[in-house]
Amino acid sequence: MTDKLTRTLARFVVGTEDVPREVRHAGRRTVLNTVALAVGASSHPAVVTARRALAPLAGAPRASVLGRGERLSPPWAALLNGMAAHVEDFDDTHLRTVVHPGAPVVPAALAVGEDLEANGGQVLLASVLGVEVALRVGNGLGPGHFDRGWHVTGTTGHLGAAAAAGRLLGLDEEAMIVALGIAATQAAGLQEALGTMTKSFHPGKAAADGVEAAYLARAGFSGPARPIEGRRGLAALAAPDPDLAESLRDLGDVWEIEDNAFKPYACGIVSHPVIDGGIAVRDKVAARDISEVEVRVNPVVLDVMGVRDPQDGLQSKFSVYHCFAVGFLYGAAGPAQYTTEVARAPEVVALRERVRPVTDAHVPKDAAFVTVTTRDRRRLEHHVEHATASAAAPMTDAQLRDKARLVATPVLGEQVEQLIDRALSIDDLPHVGLLAAAAAPVTTGV
Amino acid sequence: MTDKLTRTLARFVVGTEDVPREVRHAGRRTVLNTVALAVGASSHPAVVTARRALAPLAGAPRASVLGRGERLSPPWAALLNGMAAHVEDFDDTHLRTVVHPGAPVVPAALAVGEDLEANGGQVLLASVLGVEVALRVGNGLGPGHFDRGWHVTGTTGHLGAAAAAGRLLGLDEEAMIVALGIAATQAAGLQEALGTMTKSFHPGKAAADGVEAAYLARAGFSGPARPIEGRRGLAALAAPDPDLAESLRDLGDVWEIEDNAFKPYACGIVSHPVIDGGIAVRDKVAARDISEVEVRVNPVVLDVMGVRDPQDGLQSKFSVYHCFAVGFLYGAAGPAQYTTEVARAPEVVALRERVRPVTDAHVPKDAAFVTVTTRDRRRLEHHVEHATASAAAPMTDAQLRDKARLVATPVLGEQVEQLIDRALSIDDLPHVGLLAAAAAPVTTGV
Repeated sequence: MTDKLTRTLARFVVGTEDVPREVRHAGRRTVLNTVALAVGASSHPAVVTARRALAPLAGAPRASVLGRGERLSPPWAALLNGMAAHVEDFDDTHLRTVVHPGAPVVPAALAVGEDLEANGGQVLLASVLGVEVALRVGNGLGPGHFDRGWHVTGTTGHLGAAAAAGRLLGLDEEAMIVALGIAATQAAGLQEALGTMTKSFHPGKAAADGVEAAYLARAGFSGPARPIEGRRGLAALAAPDPDLAESLRDLGDVWEIEDNAFKPYACGIVSHPVIDGGIAVRDKVAARDISEVEVRVNPVVLDVMGVRDPQDGLQSKFSVYHCFAVGFLYGAAGPAQYTTEVARAPEVVALRERVRPVTDAHVPKDAAFVTVTTRDRRRLEHHVEHATASAAAPMTDAQLRDKARLVATPVLGEQVEQLIDRALSIDDLPHVGLLAAAAAPVTTGV
Repeated sequence: MTDKLTRTLARFVVGTEDVPREVRHAGRRTVLNTVALAVGASSHPAVVTARRALAPLAGAPRASVLGRGERLSPPWAALLNGMAAHVEDFDDTHLRTVVHPGAPVVPAALAVGEDLEANGGQVLLASVLGVEVALRVGNGLGPGHFDRGWHVTGTTGHLGAAAAAGRLLGLDEEAMIVALGIAATQAAGLQEALGTMTKSFHPGKAAADGVEAAYLARAGFSGPARPIEGRRGLAALAAPDPDLAESLRDLGDVWEIEDNAFKPYACGIVSHPVIDGGIAVRDKVAARDISEVEVRVNPVVLDVMGVRDPQDGLQSKFSVYHCFAVGFLYGAAGPAQYTTEVARAPEVVALRERVRPVTDAHVPKDAAFVTVTTRDRRRLEHHVEHATASAAAPMTDAQLRDKARLVATPVLGEQVEQLIDRALSIDDLPHVGLLAAAAAPVTTGV
């Protein structure tokens, strides 16, 4: 089967007419989370900078830039929305692959859906299928793809975005293979870019490239028959230990989107247990009394969160030292705790310097052992068994609504309630433009 | 030095104010070859299809689509021109890296140059520096990058295009590093796409992404400091045996662009010796008398030219069998010999079936040993020591003019002479738009 991996995925995307009720709801939650974050970060410097550079080049105002009351051509709208959904590192995570599927896939589906005047149900189905493709390609590429240094959201996001866009454009199986091929040949993203604006550019560009790939395929472009599984395909080139059977295992029966978790904290999910640890011990000791904090964690934490002394907000998202410090000092780790101001705050810097991570492959990714030693030699231990909102304890719909309010209210005010309601009932919308409309601030130019 | 590879390249691109006379002329030749090919293939199905899909999305008509008398926004014009320059596999080759630098770099420089109303000298210098960056990054990534299956024109083309565009935009050293980083994180292209429209999409997209990267950097975007050489940079991820010192060896003293060869035949350069062999023996035996043709070649030939029975023009460019057959039957291997009609011609198919390649690592890449066995057991041997227009025997300016006439006259008629003259004296043009104007057919909509 894996020698026809791309064809099998294409057939799945083209041929699936309905999905189980729980899967549909997982899709709605992904849409809500993605859209709310995109609105909330629509004035983030990374997004504003990209817009300043690229919007003057983009004609054909046919798709909305969420939160900005502006329309651009579909790829460019998808690009800015994909960036905005990801830039706070607050989006979603499929823990097995560390893919953040909402940011590349949902903006692609929204942009094409708006362009086509599709209804909400079509956009939801396309989003679900696109997410499924991204995550299953990630499963097949295996952990080595991420460990090697690829930003897997950028790579697999290309395929998910193309699948979602292609589904809305009504591609047949052969054209869908072409769309996935054009996407696969552009699948890229270096983890070297972590901590810079270029990181959020990865899902943005994945969304844009996926949209373009689908339009090209519809126009009759040709591409490789086996872009993922071929001898010189994506898996052979970018994955040291692919297991492509994992891409197809229980396809259509088990839905990876149901394992897509929403982040309670605005940073990479691997440091969430450490934040929980900081929050758990904050009432038991004063910061000034701490001489050292040992955090024993899975090695992946230091692989991606090793910035010791972050100098700005983006860098601070990649610092397990900072993560512990803000959990301890603020009892929170939302976007407000990852600003440049907080990254340079003296009390944060002072605590950060006393955090000492120890890696241990036996510690699960969603766990942490925190040991605080005080200046008078007391030891305080805390074991985080499962991080908040890990797969073992997913966020409820009510928590997800609260998170959407937290991020999008500053842009939308009370209108955020309409956005939340429409996102969570997207399949009832006769025209997906109604969702985009709810994401536009009443006073534009925010 | 290699731990500051990106900075060193950025400083070189930003700081070089003049280049030696011979290098400048090598640049003019690259411009001519690229522009003529782009004009000639401006109505190729791959280009027309991409245009149909993407042009409606592209606003801001600020850069010319060569050969079409149409203007689009700079990235989209660069995309179509980059595709057109490469789609006939007739462009240029830096044999050491197998990079085809003209197609990604020159269209990026032209598009941004036109947008800025730059003069021809600025565009020439930007093109030379961009080509140099692409080729030097290719040198550093090493042969394993290509052998592994990356389409090195797509990967290194991103960096060359960003360098050229960034130079024209007047980026300073820090911004140039950002532009190279945005380009590096998108550097991609699977050889799995060979023989499909997606292959020519690689340099097209490299050009477009490079342009976008430069505009983003100018707007103040941030990116990784060490995108090529970093622990999770391009070299670590996409090259099994990088040697980054090779990227910097004799930088500014030795110019790789001087080793950029122009193809006399419209297919991958590695099968050129086989075509020469076919041409050499065609007068000595009749096709119907041939029972077998053994071609002993370097193993790289079968790696990329192994299509036994091509079904269309694009596929036939990746068939060493086809290459020998057209050389023998037509005494030529221009675009006319790589059409779908010729790929399916009975006499071509019949001869192709009798070609038997034998690989031998001791045969240099620009050589071939051809042994024809006739039905009456005669043996005819021919040794091609250096293929036509290999590094050992580069095309003259007069030959390059002839090639430009061959490909661009069908689109431009007599106006091709103006295009050739302006390309070969591009640094005298007060406005690079004059070159674009010469590339526009008098009657548009061809």
